[in-house]
Amino acid sequence: MAEPFTLLKTDATSRARRGELRTTHGTIQTPIFMPVGTQGAVKGAGPDELRTVGAQIILGNTYHLSIRPGLDVIRHFGGLHEFIRWNGPLLTDSGGFQVFSLAKIRQIKEEGVHFQSHLDGSPLFIGPETSMEIQAALGADIAMAFDECPPYLCGHEYAATSLARTLRWAERCRTWATANAPAGQLHFGIVQGATFADLREESARALVAMDWAGYAIGGVSVGEPVPEMMRAAEITVPFLPEDRPRYCMGLGTPPQIVELVARGLDMFDCVLPTRLARHGAAFTDEGTINVRNKQYEFEKGPIEIGCECPCCREFSLAYVRHLIRAEEILGIRLVTLHNLHYYLRLAARIRTAIEDGSFAEFRAKFAATYRERPGVKTGGEEPRILHE
Amino acid sequence: MAEPFTLLKTDATSRARRGELRTTHGTIQTPIFMPVGTQGAVKGAGPDELRTVGAQIILGNTYHLSIRPGLDVIRHFGGLHEFIRWNGPLLTDSGGFQVFSLAKIRQIKEEGVHFQSHLDGSPLFIGPETSMEIQAALGADIAMAFDECPPYLCGHEYAATSLARTLRWAERCRTWATANAPAGQLHFGIVQGATFADLREESARALVAMDWAGYAIGGVSVGEPVPEMMRAAEITVPFLPEDRPRYCMGLGTPPQIVELVARGLDMFDCVLPTRLARHGAAFTDEGTINVRNKQYEFEKGPIEIGCECPCCREFSLAYVRHLIRAEEILGIRLVTLHNLHYYLRLAARIRTAIEDGSFAEFRAKFAATYRERPGVKTGGEEPRILHE
Repeated sequence: MAEPFTLLKTDATSRARRGELRTTHGTIQTPIFMPVGTQGAVKGAGPDELRTVGAQIILGNTYHLSIRPGLDVIRHFGGLHEFIRWNGPLLTDSGGFQVFSLAKIRQIKEEGVHFQSHLDGSPLFIGPETSMEIQAALGADIAMAFDECPPYLCGHEYAATSLARTLRWAERCRTWATANAPAGQLHFGIVQGATFADLREESARALVAMDWAGYAIGGVSVGEPVPEMMRAAEITVPFLPEDRPRYCMGLGTPPQIVELVARGLDMFDCVLPTRLARHGAAFTDEGTINVRNKQYEFEKGPIEIGCECPCCREFSLAYVRHLIRAEEILGIRLVTLHNLHYYLRLAARIRTAIEDGSFAEFRAKFAATYRERPGVKTGGEEPRILHE
Repeated sequence: MAEPFTLLKTDATSRARRGELRTTHGTIQTPIFMPVGTQGAVKGAGPDELRTVGAQIILGNTYHLSIRPGLDVIRHFGGLHEFIRWNGPLLTDSGGFQVFSLAKIRQIKEEGVHFQSHLDGSPLFIGPETSMEIQAALGADIAMAFDECPPYLCGHEYAATSLARTLRWAERCRTWATANAPAGQLHFGIVQGATFADLREESARALVAMDWAGYAIGGVSVGEPVPEMMRAAEITVPFLPEDRPRYCMGLGTPPQIVELVARGLDMFDCVLPTRLARHGAAFTDEGTINVRNKQYEFEKGPIEIGCECPCCREFSLAYVRHLIRAEEILGIRLVTLHNLHYYLRLAARIRTAIEDGSFAEFRAKFAATYRERPGVKTGGEEPRILHE
């Protein structure tokens, strides 16, 4: 089989790359943003709308979907694609992050993790083989290795022990997948090592020796702030092969994504566009705006002038403000579509800039005009369940 | 100006009628169901989706919209059509029902009603002229007279006093509208009289003498059960002119609508399809089903076989069940679209049956197959605010 990833162009001024990744459900252009469909739906958007706003690939969640609706249901439908009616590429996480961030009463053993369901407390187990088996049943185009996400600010000794086990788990994932995974499914390893440069290097080298189809930088660790995440990317990328896609898990704000692209990352997922939409925050090139603000009461223009999203093409900011204040579902949906469109369009602009050789200019301009707002939660993966 | 309403056909077996009503934003085919857009949005659906499911006319709410976003905003946009981006016919209620069901601390005086906003308790006033002025500013194609909805089971004396005042208010509405209403706006009187046949007759006769473009049967009274509503329709209709549309406010379940059509009613609005959708109840010809039910866990078929709505054309009942159980917005939206489509399609089937001369057959078959479920709230107008 031909290599799934093709590196099309490398930026002269940074580590930014333009590439494409072939999966069984279609080819993805990178750098790419992947909307998060934790429970088998991207919150506030349907499959047709995801296409409209330019989604190429979406995420599903091994932990959540295996608990509800459960694998029996998804197997009955022949996989997640058919169940949720999304016929494009799907990436599933391994469940590792959620086991460590959502589930209660965990016991980490060599065979895997024993934990309790966040829904009803029932005892559950996920280990490397279980995770790969679930992702096989989901029919993911891209499946992730099962890993431990150590707690933020854990010591070197804990991080080293955790990493060693995660590497043994990675080997077991590969073994299971080689024997059992669906044809064409791609498997990505996840670089861990917490905040320690030596462990990140060790992790990257060991995973690369296993020869994965792609490499992720693990959600660093649960609760870790963004500068550490940026540093983890800088430390890790030099040890990753040029000819494989690199996925930065669970980040970030628009300028963070631009900066991570500049550090050589290709794939991103984040719940910010959907989660913030539900709180009435809309993304623009100048930063997020709070659509509830009194200043928009009479605003006939859209959220962002020139935006081609289904919300901005049709509706005034004044109306969207009214809908959000009145707690109308339509308001949440319209801001969600705007925000997803913003992120997907940002990825498209980054790709064009790399192709044109204008990425340095784009990056500088973006950093100069985009203002991060206080109060906007940045970084980190998804802590909550019903509301992402 | 030509009469806005044309009676196209009368059923031979009942009082059912097939007609059409011309408004400044288009012609409505009756009998018709009108989705409720209380706060300037039909809960869970956008304007494009309303068109897709067959909506011809929607409702807006004088009371809610005048409080939020406020008339200044809607005037700034040149009316509700432009603000909410709905270019079809719009009917607004007068605010009377909400003043009596939602607002707190009311004082009913001859000039109108003093009350407190349900949002922040601020003192407000709506009288006949205020109501008509608001509905003029909203740019309603059909505006309703301002009325008192007396409490359920009030005595004859109270009901008679209330009715006399409501008739004086109706005169004042007409006077204001004749002098000030936008060109082409239609005005409907509302027959009141609580549960008393003599008062209903008196109300109908007095209103007909005023010569309104159409006649509504007032939400009977706040909290009144359905049999009384059906009786109120039977009592009232004989006193209404054949050549004017008749609007039954705030009802009902599908079989109730069929029976009210058989009693000579033409227009209906009800929040049941949207409200029940949010609780996971979907309408079918056999009654509502609870999509959460375990029996649908593996169901690959749609909510209703043969249904052409955006939900049933694409998604399995098992997936919709999963979405509703997982509290995903997409689930609410899909069931909402199904339910609205069901009601709008029901109205279309009723129209076809009247045209074909098969209404009696349709009515009998519908009554035989549709089962009202206990637990489905029926009848009455909308008591709550944020969630309808």
